[in-house]
Amino acid sequence: MPTAAIIGGGVIGSGWATRFLLNGWDVRFFDPSADAERVLQAVIERGREAMPALSDAAPKEGSLIIADSTADAVAGAVYIQESTPERIEIKQAVFRSIQEACDADAIVASSTSGFMPTELQEGALRPEQIIVSHPYNPVYLLPLVEVVASPKVSPDLIQRASDVLESVSMKPIVLGAEVPAHVGDRLLEALWREALWLIKDGVATTGQIDDIITHSFGLRWAQKGLFETYRVAGGQAGMKHFLEQFGPCLEWPWTKLMDVPDLDDALIDRIVEQSDEQAAGRTVMQLENERDRNLVALLKALRREDAAAGAFLNEVNRRKLSD
Amino acid sequence: MPTAAIIGGGVIGSGWATRFLLNGWDVRFFDPSADAERVLQAVIERGREAMPALSDAAPKEGSLIIADSTADAVAGAVYIQESTPERIEIKQAVFRSIQEACDADAIVASSTSGFMPTELQEGALRPEQIIVSHPYNPVYLLPLVEVVASPKVSPDLIQRASDVLESVSMKPIVLGAEVPAHVGDRLLEALWREALWLIKDGVATTGQIDDIITHSFGLRWAQKGLFETYRVAGGQAGMKHFLEQFGPCLEWPWTKLMDVPDLDDALIDRIVEQSDEQAAGRTVMQLENERDRNLVALLKALRREDAAAGAFLNEVNRRKLSD
Repeated sequence: MPTAAIIGGGVIGSGWATRFLLNGWDVRFFDPSADAERVLQAVIERGREAMPALSDAAPKEGSLIIADSTADAVAGAVYIQESTPERIEIKQAVFRSIQEACDADAIVASSTSGFMPTELQEGALRPEQIIVSHPYNPVYLLPLVEVVASPKVSPDLIQRASDVLESVSMKPIVLGAEVPAHVGDRLLEALWREALWLIKDGVATTGQIDDIITHSFGLRWAQKGLFETYRVAGGQAGMKHFLEQFGPCLEWPWTKLMDVPDLDDALIDRIVEQSDEQAAGRTVMQLENERDRNLVALLKALRREDAAAGAFLNEVNRRKLSD
Repeated sequence: MPTAAIIGGGVIGSGWATRFLLNGWDVRFFDPSADAERVLQAVIERGREAMPALSDAAPKEGSLIIADSTADAVAGAVYIQESTPERIEIKQAVFRSIQEACDADAIVASSTSGFMPTELQEGALRPEQIIVSHPYNPVYLLPLVEVVASPKVSPDLIQRASDVLESVSMKPIVLGAEVPAHVGDRLLEALWREALWLIKDGVATTGQIDDIITHSFGLRWAQKGLFETYRVAGGQAGMKHFLEQFGPCLEWPWTKLMDVPDLDDALIDRIVEQSDEQAAGRTVMQLENERDRNLVALLKALRREDAAAGAFLNEVNRRKLSD
């Protein structure tokens, strides 16, 4: 089996190790902290419990080796994932250690949530070998990886990285440009700041905001994204109609929402074009049918899980009573 | 059975009518446009298909009366839901027609996504009778209703409105204050603007942004909201640790993210307190177990639906080939 090297543990690095192991890869793991192996084993256990329920034919688990050093971990590895603390001087030093010992054609990827490949590559032995593969927690369950390259990285390396990530049942999305914090965390950051305003102004509590999210667009977004949802909202009149209607709303004088992008014709056309491509010929009715079928399945699934949790709590309470 | 009056159809008003009918309420419906009844029947059909799968013991469907006028629709109704076009002068005129004919103790609610109760109440016969009940599309499936009042509205009316909404299997959230666009749409607006920047700058396409959302935080938010997710991310160290760590990130010089709220001690303390209350004594491990169980159920459900959609497409293709 191919070998992945995991440099840096914690919740994210341990999640990567679990993802590779349970998808049949051999893993060489290194983290110098005393607590790292305990965290790793706990995450692997959690992954082992969850994964069989997702797959009828899980591959044979790979073997895990706890390495003594970065050099020991990366020797011979096809894919190397760095998940050390979010400080640029640490990451650059770790990349130097990695590149002194790894194969020149290995893929060297960072879990960084904030830094761009160009920053990570500064002072590196082979800058063109370093990319970002940014995952989401829990890494052993959530499929997304944002793959980010700089102009120095070859299309071949990006393709090989995507192939590796797909081989461990992940969904790599190769971004069109490098920006601080990539895409998902920027979207989260925008929503997070608005949530902070709402709390500060006493409009809603954290619990209410969570309830609002989980009972509305959270249920949408587990299965349809922002643009496809709005495409459906546009109805038969389509995405352009929706954008032209929605556009002016972006300039409403909402006290805490500022710095509005100019939704001009060029931007409208670009979104319409991309949305058309994304729909791939499906009609609004087809999209609506997909949406409703998914929502029913999700709501049923959540209800079943609530019932299971209730039964478990009853069991715990019974045991307490009989003590 | 109690009677709900639905004033104004379209996707939202028709969704409300469907929600009430399928939960056993009698409905009196009025919309002057020629197309309204066709849209209503289409939405009711869609609702009828979806609802039985969500409930083993669906109540007997209520009766539907197409009224000749607003006055005819609202006479004797316990709950009146207005879903007319998003223009304040239309809504205020409709409220005058409603209040001239409805019971003085009926609940008069607006589906408005932008206006505040204080604005809707201007010039009304009985301002204290008018609230906002803002739903999410599709109304017959998504449970959330943001309930917003002005200081003129009594706690008793707000409680009765919540009781009505719960009786049709919805999740009413009573906001702490009135602000333009309430809560959910402000969160969506913040994320939407950032998505527009990312598209404008060529960082990602609409399809990539949708894939990023549906494969990461969309799966989280169908079952755990923003704050509970971050609480789990904080791990054993808790919400305060998370906020103190995360806080500075809010001031990173991300080019397109501006107007940052001051995450001072008072705001940190408020969020920590609300998050504690929300957790209601559950440990991080308990929350993690809930999260993983839900994610497995959702991912399994989505996979099953993909398989069903695939089988359906195969069937369509077979029929095309045999034509």
